[in-house]
Amino acid sequence: MAVTLKDVAALAGVSVKTVSNVVNGYAFVKPENRRRVEEALAATGYRPNVGARNLRRGRTGFLALMVPELNIPYFGELAGLVLTAAQKRGWSVLIEQTQGTRDRERTTLASLGPHLVDGALVHPEALEASDFRGVAGGIPMVMLGEHAIDVPIDRVAIDNVKAARTAVTHLAGLGRRRIAAIGRNPARGTSELRMAGYRSALAAAGLSYVEELVAPAEKYHRAHGAAAMKALLALPAPPDAVFCFNDLLAIGALRSVAELGLRVPEDVAIVGFDNNEESAFSVPALSTVAPDKTALAETAIDLVCRRITGETAAPPQHVLTPFALEVRESTRGR
Amino acid sequence: MAVTLKDVAALAGVSVKTVSNVVNGYAFVKPENRRRVEEALAATGYRPNVGARNLRRGRTGFLALMVPELNIPYFGELAGLVLTAAQKRGWSVLIEQTQGTRDRERTTLASLGPHLVDGALVHPEALEASDFRGVAGGIPMVMLGEHAIDVPIDRVAIDNVKAARTAVTHLAGLGRRRIAAIGRNPARGTSELRMAGYRSALAAAGLSYVEELVAPAEKYHRAHGAAAMKALLALPAPPDAVFCFNDLLAIGALRSVAELGLRVPEDVAIVGFDNNEESAFSVPALSTVAPDKTALAETAIDLVCRRITGETAAPPQHVLTPFALEVRESTRGR
Repeated sequence: MAVTLKDVAALAGVSVKTVSNVVNGYAFVKPENRRRVEEALAATGYRPNVGARNLRRGRTGFLALMVPELNIPYFGELAGLVLTAAQKRGWSVLIEQTQGTRDRERTTLASLGPHLVDGALVHPEALEASDFRGVAGGIPMVMLGEHAIDVPIDRVAIDNVKAARTAVTHLAGLGRRRIAAIGRNPARGTSELRMAGYRSALAAAGLSYVEELVAPAEKYHRAHGAAAMKALLALPAPPDAVFCFNDLLAIGALRSVAELGLRVPEDVAIVGFDNNEESAFSVPALSTVAPDKTALAETAIDLVCRRITGETAAPPQHVLTPFALEVRESTRGR
Repeated sequence: MAVTLKDVAALAGVSVKTVSNVVNGYAFVKPENRRRVEEALAATGYRPNVGARNLRRGRTGFLALMVPELNIPYFGELAGLVLTAAQKRGWSVLIEQTQGTRDRERTTLASLGPHLVDGALVHPEALEASDFRGVAGGIPMVMLGEHAIDVPIDRVAIDNVKAARTAVTHLAGLGRRRIAAIGRNPARGTSELRMAGYRSALAAAGLSYVEELVAPAEKYHRAHGAAAMKALLALPAPPDAVFCFNDLLAIGALRSVAELGLRVPEDVAIVGFDNNEESAFSVPALSTVAPDKTALAETAIDLVCRRITGETAAPPQHVLTPFALEVRESTRGR
């Protein structure tokens, strides 16, 4: 039996009109009522009759989400949150995978348009600003993440420089002197931002930047972290701490340290980035930069919906969502 | 620049007609040529001009994929493979999350139909056979996984009873006598199948079935595995081996064993199920039942496409795809 607006209103204890205002993305709803309606929408799995509504408004009812790979936990988790946020507002989501290559990202961008979707959330890794020219037929687009290109669209991201600085300052605060980094990759937008945070934290702690302690990573998968860690531990003067540019690299690094019979954090302290769910359960549990992924997904969906409904026509915004450093056993010990 | 059929043909070293046959899902293409075309399609990211093609054929160009949660790595990995397989054939994929509840699964099923998608891949956890009656407006549907309900649609799964039996036989073969199970949950279709495999392997090894060694799990997340393992280790006669019904439960179990200062596999050997990528990197690396997820995704997309194009009108099939037991440190030691 299809759930109706009336069912949602009854469960939330508000009027049908209030539910309708939330579902249609109108701004003037009391925060408390909005929260109750959103909870009731999630509990009932209510879906607006988008077919009829879209026909009326000349919309497709679809949003697109472009990500590198769904089997990377960060993107699997983020995609799940984007789907949940979109569904609450009555949109269905098409997901496109690009493997993070510029060619695939361009092809995806070129395939988007008002015939297909009403708006798009894109997480590029290799696109250049010129790739955005004339594509997507003017549908609203929001960029996820701090890919460092200058295009006039909305963006939602955490402050990568500050986040990296926070992680490395934590390691320095533990008294570590040879702090390595794993994940340098000039082709990835966030890599240079995290490098900047790393260097700035070293400088603030009075530590010098040592080129050999910066390990590149072609991809940000576990195997690449494992290989990079082995190379660092083979140095004449190996590091006593490592900042990894994502949790997968850090999980691979943990594994290599264990294989060599060394201890985390006694011999090497390790910090990751992303706070994947697996990181709370690794042995030892991983300290990591934890972006507020729910805020990221909700903010991005909110922005794209306001553009679609015409509720805002303000110049493109760059919204920073919160992060926190999650300190666990890989730096603090047990 | 959009990639054309000609570009793909040149890269694959075949005729444009051959590429067209593969893209349109026709059967009569030499396997070697099909393979070369598929590789070239993947490398170039070619997308058929589905707009024009679908208009001609009265199709939407979309498939739906219904899964419980994308942030469960098994579904993140599977969804990624389904998207890749669908894209090769020119379909875009809408993903719907249900959290595995019957209500949400029913709502999703009811929202599907020819106005929205040309076909659907569904992975239900709680649906009953009656929920399928009269839904989805007759679009082709393929069920993923061995959810034990009797509905007349195509299915693709691994043999769960046999897979569970293989895992438990491996533990018995190591000389373990008190083999526990984590994950019993009568509301989940595959749970009873894995229980059957567990019991049959115990019987074959001359071990008796001990009720207290079977730990339930409300959800199959890491935290539930960790809690179940703690309960088992608190028994007067704790287990010397555990078969977990998925890798997340097993990762949680590994963590609890480490927290209690015990060793895997010396004190407790552990086997998981799914072969999530993280399982090769846990400390110790996890032995697990490895379904061939690529075969599962490819077979399911192939089946649904043949139904959509009318290439087959055969009675519904139940296709079993392969699995293997991946033996790693959590049973073999280092």
